[in-house]
Amino acid sequence: MTSDTGFDLANPVPIAQALIRRPSITPADAGALDVLQGMLEAMGFDCRRYPFGEVDNLYARLGTASPCFLFAGHTDVVPPGDEAGWQRAPFAAEEADGVLWGRGAADMKGAIAAMVAAVRRHLDASGTPDGSIAFLITGDEEGPAINGTKAVLKALEAEGETFDHCLVGEPTNPNALGDTIKSGRRGSLNCEITVTGRQGHVAYPERAENPIPPLLDLLARLRARTLDSGVPHFQPSNLEITTVDVGNPTTNVIPATARARFNIRFNIAHTGAGLTRWIEDEAAGVNLHFDGQVKTDIHVTGEAFLTPAGAFTSLLQDCVEAETGRRPALTTGGGTSDARFIQAYAPVAEFGLVGATMHQVNERVPVSDIESLTRIYARILDRYFRDTPE
Amino acid sequence: MTSDTGFDLANPVPIAQALIRRPSITPADAGALDVLQGMLEAMGFDCRRYPFGEVDNLYARLGTASPCFLFAGHTDVVPPGDEAGWQRAPFAAEEADGVLWGRGAADMKGAIAAMVAAVRRHLDASGTPDGSIAFLITGDEEGPAINGTKAVLKALEAEGETFDHCLVGEPTNPNALGDTIKSGRRGSLNCEITVTGRQGHVAYPERAENPIPPLLDLLARLRARTLDSGVPHFQPSNLEITTVDVGNPTTNVIPATARARFNIRFNIAHTGAGLTRWIEDEAAGVNLHFDGQVKTDIHVTGEAFLTPAGAFTSLLQDCVEAETGRRPALTTGGGTSDARFIQAYAPVAEFGLVGATMHQVNERVPVSDIESLTRIYARILDRYFRDTPE
Ligand SMILES: [Zn+2]
Ligand SMILES: [Zn+2]
Repeated sequence: MTSDTGFDLANPVPIAQALIRRPSITPADAGALDVLQGMLEAMGFDCRRYPFGEVDNLYARLGTASPCFLFAGHTDVVPPGDEAGWQRAPFAAEEADGVLWGRGAADMKGAIAAMVAAVRRHLDASGTPDGSIAFLITGDEEGPAINGTKAVLKALEAEGETFDHCLVGEPTNPNALGDTIKSGRRGSLNCEITVTGRQGHVAYPERAENPIPPLLDLLARLRARTLDSGVPHFQPSNLEITTVDVGNPTTNVIPATARARFNIRFNIAHTGAGLTRWIEDEAAGVNLHFDGQVKTDIHVTGEAFLTPAGAFTSLLQDCVEAETGRRPALTTGGGTSDARFIQAYAPVAEFGLVGATMHQVNERVPVSDIESLTRIYARILDRYFRDTPE
Repeated sequence: MTSDTGFDLANPVPIAQALIRRPSITPADAGALDVLQGMLEAMGFDCRRYPFGEVDNLYARLGTASPCFLFAGHTDVVPPGDEAGWQRAPFAAEEADGVLWGRGAADMKGAIAAMVAAVRRHLDASGTPDGSIAFLITGDEEGPAINGTKAVLKALEAEGETFDHCLVGEPTNPNALGDTIKSGRRGSLNCEITVTGRQGHVAYPERAENPIPPLLDLLARLRARTLDSGVPHFQPSNLEITTVDVGNPTTNVIPATARARFNIRFNIAHTGAGLTRWIEDEAAGVNLHFDGQVKTDIHVTGEAFLTPAGAFTSLLQDCVEAETGRRPALTTGGGTSDARFIQAYAPVAEFGLVGATMHQVNERVPVSDIESLTRIYARILDRYFRDTPE
């Protein structure tokens, strides 16, 4: 069936191509949300935009009844990088030898196209669901993630909108479709330490206050703690010092200021607030032999969460296995995603395409994977509305 | 007596003014050595220039017999800094209310003027000495010190020139003329450590090789050693970390390279070679959990030395005490000077003006101090050639 959008909405690949051809590099939208909105409206979705700052976001819902199944994702993409390194132009969305090329093919316009086509197929096969289907698609996942999913969810909450389950279309498979479903994510905390002392000459250290030794002492205290040895479903929490900077060009001057930054990826044995208290305590315990200052600037950019294995995750695993012949593992590794925001509102899991080429030159996915993912998403909708999990 | 230089060479203040009015900021000479050479030639000195690179140097000798008493110093000065902060123009050499203002007044054109006037007075009082008086004046003391005293001494050694004792005119007095004679200096060693790892994402530390932890481990090993608790005549050796630099602007990337620099000021309990071996051993002992690299780049810019207390240092102390009424202490603290090079050729000590304002805006000295220093230097020459120490 061809809608008035000019697309066969049950066929995901031309939809993915239309989306990839909009160079929506964060925070630019480049018309990508308009393309998507047109298709969702053609299927009867009620669409609303939630612009925040320079970011545009789309919320769409079909139906008003419970349960509400939410597809979440993003149309923004990272920059193409070294364009000379691309074998196919990054925004041409060329299909060749069964492969779809382009920035966003894997992360995650291919998955959004699969969601749209899955809804079309579900509606065609099962009719209007006994419940609702919603889309929350942001233009700020690859950027600061402040004016995207987080802000829209807050606005929707104020409007009384609720969700029962959410599936995020991030590319969760390392190697092949069916590898892994992400049922949780580690949290992330960034900290900048600034130690201020007093400048002086290296020959007269007693007249200066070198900020480097207390900074190194604090970093040693922080490194000395084993945060945990891993907890079920999670790898061990990890503290990684990412930079130490003094920027003193001279060899005979003791500097006035020293800085370091570190990141902690933490599992559900920790909370951002608990780690913040620990860091602040360690900083307060540093022995300043002088009238200096140790400042910590801490930002928790996401809490750890786990959607417990149960009816919802089993439903997802069943549908993936039915299509791929392999039962995907439930994992929590890797980086953060907008699921960290959604988990506060509804059980959330993530399953999408193969991420091997994401954020790199020559991002691409097999066309057959987009087709398989569409069938998986359609199975999920069919089963969800037939047998809604707790 | 007024020589054909137009100066009364027994009067140090106009000589100091003439030198200060040449803005000889390292490596520029600005005619300062010409002024000095004219005066020394007027007193019968044989003058030779030793230009190396962009630096000019003057060696002058009166007489050929032993013993040879060497005055050493520099006409180059550090930049004036914030000129708006000067109450008197830095190169105007204004005398007001008994104070001589200007860059180099204390460090050390005032002392060079005192040397010249002391020689004139000694010759007038005692006639041609039974020995030699020499001047080694460089234009590269405040700079890299490569093309100055060190290079000239090497050239003079090749020519068979020898010295019996040397007095350097650095401003050795912290507060008042007569405080301290420097009879030694600590050595100085600079080291840059570079640790190379492999860049990666903080969420996947197992795929990256963070160079920061091994760098911090090495710095901790180096800091853990108490080099010594001081030895007679010297304060304890000290290691001072002057910078740590990674320069990673992102919060989610593990960097590829980390650098640190430190300086060691060491007393005669150590040698540059011994410390170099220790640093290299500690670097080799750092546990690299990866195929990375720890590189150390070590430069010994001066060895520690001590001119033992004896006839020469007593002679200097006696002459300072006779003029100031206070017996100066023999010390070895503070920064390095060209005495580190001279000590390999002859017993060397340092005594000059008050250093309180050196290298700062509003550098200045009391005119009476220049006059007192001249009398001290003249006493030293008188006594040296009457009663030459061992
Ligand atoms: Zn993504
Ligand atoms: Zn000096």
